[in-house]
Amino acid sequence: MRPVDIIRKKRDGGELSREEIHFIVDGYTRDAIPDYQVSAWLMAVVWRGMSRAELAALTEAMLHSGRVLDLSSFPGMKVDKHSTGGVGDKTSLIIAPVAAAGGLLVPMISGRGLGHTGGTLDKLESIPGFNVNLPKAEFLRVLGACGCALAGQTSEIAPADKKLYALRDVTATVDSPPLICASIMSKKLAEGIDGLVLDVKTGSGAFMKREEDAVALAELMVETGRLMGTRVMALITDMSQPLGRAAGNALEIAECIEVLRGGGPGDLRSLCLELAGWMFCLGRRSADVEEGRQLAAEIIADGRGLEKFRQIIGLQGGDPAVIDDPSRLPQSRRRVDLLSPGEGFLADIACEQIGLAVVMLGGGREKKEDAVDPAVGIVLHKRIGDPVREGEPFCTIHYNSETRLAAARVLLDPAFRVVREASPGAPPLIRKRIGIQPQSRPAAPGGGAADTE
Amino acid sequence: MRPVDIIRKKRDGGELSREEIHFIVDGYTRDAIPDYQVSAWLMAVVWRGMSRAELAALTEAMLHSGRVLDLSSFPGMKVDKHSTGGVGDKTSLIIAPVAAAGGLLVPMISGRGLGHTGGTLDKLESIPGFNVNLPKAEFLRVLGACGCALAGQTSEIAPADKKLYALRDVTATVDSPPLICASIMSKKLAEGIDGLVLDVKTGSGAFMKREEDAVALAELMVETGRLMGTRVMALITDMSQPLGRAAGNALEIAECIEVLRGGGPGDLRSLCLELAGWMFCLGRRSADVEEGRQLAAEIIADGRGLEKFRQIIGLQGGDPAVIDDPSRLPQSRRRVDLLSPGEGFLADIACEQIGLAVVMLGGGREKKEDAVDPAVGIVLHKRIGDPVREGEPFCTIHYNSETRLAAARVLLDPAFRVVREASPGAPPLIRKRIGIQPQSRPAAPGGGAADTE
Repeated sequence: MRPVDIIRKKRDGGELSREEIHFIVDGYTRDAIPDYQVSAWLMAVVWRGMSRAELAALTEAMLHSGRVLDLSSFPGMKVDKHSTGGVGDKTSLIIAPVAAAGGLLVPMISGRGLGHTGGTLDKLESIPGFNVNLPKAEFLRVLGACGCALAGQTSEIAPADKKLYALRDVTATVDSPPLICASIMSKKLAEGIDGLVLDVKTGSGAFMKREEDAVALAELMVETGRLMGTRVMALITDMSQPLGRAAGNALEIAECIEVLRGGGPGDLRSLCLELAGWMFCLGRRSADVEEGRQLAAEIIADGRGLEKFRQIIGLQGGDPAVIDDPSRLPQSRRRVDLLSPGEGFLADIACEQIGLAVVMLGGGREKKEDAVDPAVGIVLHKRIGDPVREGEPFCTIHYNSETRLAAARVLLDPAFRVVREASPGAPPLIRKRIGIQPQSRPAAPGGGAADTE
Repeated sequence: MRPVDIIRKKRDGGELSREEIHFIVDGYTRDAIPDYQVSAWLMAVVWRGMSRAELAALTEAMLHSGRVLDLSSFPGMKVDKHSTGGVGDKTSLIIAPVAAAGGLLVPMISGRGLGHTGGTLDKLESIPGFNVNLPKAEFLRVLGACGCALAGQTSEIAPADKKLYALRDVTATVDSPPLICASIMSKKLAEGIDGLVLDVKTGSGAFMKREEDAVALAELMVETGRLMGTRVMALITDMSQPLGRAAGNALEIAECIEVLRGGGPGDLRSLCLELAGWMFCLGRRSADVEEGRQLAAEIIADGRGLEKFRQIIGLQGGDPAVIDDPSRLPQSRRRVDLLSPGEGFLADIACEQIGLAVVMLGGGREKKEDAVDPAVGIVLHKRIGDPVREGEPFCTIHYNSETRLAAARVLLDPAFRVVREASPGAPPLIRKRIGIQPQSRPAAPGGGAADTE
């Protein structure tokens, strides 16, 4: 087999065999096939797409390029959640403790902020002392001790994905549904899980702006999971405005603690109950998602979720006192409100600009090697559809540098659009559910959800 | 400017600016942009194609990646010919001496055999002592001394093309009309020529099997030449059977000497007169192609073409005695005839298989580092449309190894198809002319030609 023939076959629209895909992925992982052949192949895949069988083979080859976690010695069902990323998207930090408190094992391997979106690891690191770089043995120890571990990808997990992702990033081959799907699914399935809930974001603050693209990706991932023998379901959820109120690392941790205390913004709480409900359902802790949502609500109401989060923080080296005193989290030195210049109703929010403004404030990375300022960010006071008076604040900006504030304001000032007439409001938070087995269909959608399937 | 943004723009079907194309080509030539970004970009170009303006910018960037020959100190018009390659395609070795004998300067930089097609340099090297590796100063000395020099590409000429071609070869990005056009035109225009005649082959033995593909490429090249300020015209010529009778390095040199003596196969002689006629026309040695053809015919008839070839051979270190005694060229140790199993008319020849059979005999390269056996090859005795009797030879195989003969016969045995009824014969040799200025249109097409423009 020669790489050039496999590239040509894909270029000409042919379907690659399982052997041909493994040849490329395995050869690339062990440096036997050079970058320049793989990047040409990746561009041909962007062009021609992949069949379901090709995608399953690619996911499998990437998954087996490294070690798959062997969790067979742990009793119980292993379930994880993955989000495609958005602004203020902090559900992992709420539902991982809730799911673990409810008896599931949650071996959650997460990423850093990417582009305008935040990353779970960056948020966790705003907790003083929290260590996300767990070697495998330590990861398993934490998982065994409390049912949940929150860490970054090690070189043992799907090394092909790590190499391919770095190459895709510099060759404009990121935006390809099969490549995105294989990247996500290979990493998640390498966690050795039984079930996976996908939160596929769509709207102005998501990578997939159009709902049909989000649905197509979700269907690909659900189908790939099925072909690989794992229970997978996906929610298509709205990202036309930030989730919850806070965007920025420590600000988001504080908001998660609020939700785990039974408070917090309604949209965030709703989505967390829905996602945790599905995790319980896939992990057979509940008969259906409705029962799962109730279980999640109970775990929050009786404080078990908050205690589980405290336990995880302690086990991973963080300061558990932040749970009772969120002011121990990093705080910005300065704050300023962004005021509405007029009166009416908030018609829309340029959500990606909000995410980029957080990056500009120092809360994300412009270059890979940049340090992240955990304290900065934005707290929203208005949501789409809300009435707004002149001089009322749209949001509060938490910042540490006037220069960075100025750069962020260039993005923020035009990000809120007010109209005279009441607008139809934001799209429903939960837009679609994909891949649900009939017996686990909910009788009625949860708070803010619209079952449009 | 970032390479990834330029790749993305092309991937999404955008038109690149002159600056963006120069950024990629210049950056790649001086190793500032890595292979893996350029190969992804090349695949995006294969996918999306290029506008005429992009193609001119690419050609210009590749042309100026190295030195352009400065022939301003040589009086007279500099004209060259380029063929896209075929089997038995040996016209350069006849028309370069003829054009030089007619007063043109012919600074001809040629290539090696590629795939199933032969290469001018390999053919020349079958002349004992002939040196095609001329440093620039020596190239200019030979050109000045006899009006023609025949050599290989040096690292000074279009180094971007050399790097890009090597990359395209291993990334399945060869078959792209704009990339082929830029590669050919950048090298040819780097010769510092005033005029260029293109022989674009089509048919089973050409790289472009379909005439419409050949026409599209020819139009691209003619237009690119026009945008770059050089007089360019193209002939679309038939390659559904080998040109002339001989395929194989020394065998082809011997056939060229026959033509320069006034003999040789009619099709080869016809095409040479047509090509040389156009060279004279573009180089303003004749008022039109008809007058150019007559001039070429006179130069052959009075022996000036043959004497010019002798002179070139002598100046480039070869043995000029081969002109009078072609048996001094390398001869194979063995010969065998391939006989017709039946009676009828030769309906078609698998022309690419004939070329590959010559490679199998050792007359071309399977891998870049292979040595070439100058003596081996095939001499055809039948052309498409000819009557064939049972047991009559289709061709004679000149070989040095029984193993190689056996490999070649696997390809040759099924290469000749005989039918009972007389077939319509071969397609016309000259199928189309592209890019001719109205004042130089011929009154009537030359031998075997069909002016279908």
